[in-house]
Amino acid sequence: MSTLKLDLESYKDLLKQYIESQDEQALYRAEQFSKHSIQQNISPDVIIDVHIQALMELYPNLPENVNNSMNFLLETMISYGLAYQEYQALREKQL
Amino acid sequence: MSTLKLDLESYKDLLKQYIESQDEQALYRAEQFSKHSIQQNISPDVIIDVHIQALMELYPNLPENVNNSMNFLLETMISYGLAYQEYQALREKQL
Repeated sequence: MSTLKLDLESYKDLLKQYIESQDEQALYRAEQFSKHSIQQNISPDVIIDVHIQALMELYPNLPENVNNSMNFLLETMISYGLAYQEYQALREKQL
Repeated sequence: MSTLKLDLESYKDLLKQYIESQDEQALYRAEQFSKHSIQQNISPDVIIDVHIQALMELYPNLPENVNNSMNFLLETMISYGLAYQEYQALREKQL
């Protein structure tokens, strides 16, 4: 739980840095963040969830259509999360 | 190319329907859309890309911070796309 919380804070910091400066360095760190998440078996829908939480904490007054669109994206990613977990199981079987 | 274009139109229609009505039926169809995309070996970063295009076409005047945040999310998902392709290769090897 504390790890996920830490990840949310890291993601939020990187997202804020990128939104404010469009800094290439923040994009590079985003790539590192996701590689690290993959190593920890975190599925892609969890990233979307963390993204939504970070965005809502940074900008609590986003237009309603944006919030709704993110919920829709999260729903779309849930099947990808399940496929990803299947991939992890398959890979562990091969190792 | 025309398939991807068709998918973008389908996704955009579903997204619009959900944003306007928060209809559970649209969420169910989003799930079907992503299952179909998984069957077609479409990786999760492509879904994010389609989501961004659909959102920009539906709402061309979104705040700049929202557009930037979506680019950041796309960058984060690219590593997941690569991991997903690795999964596809592994699965094909097992079949």
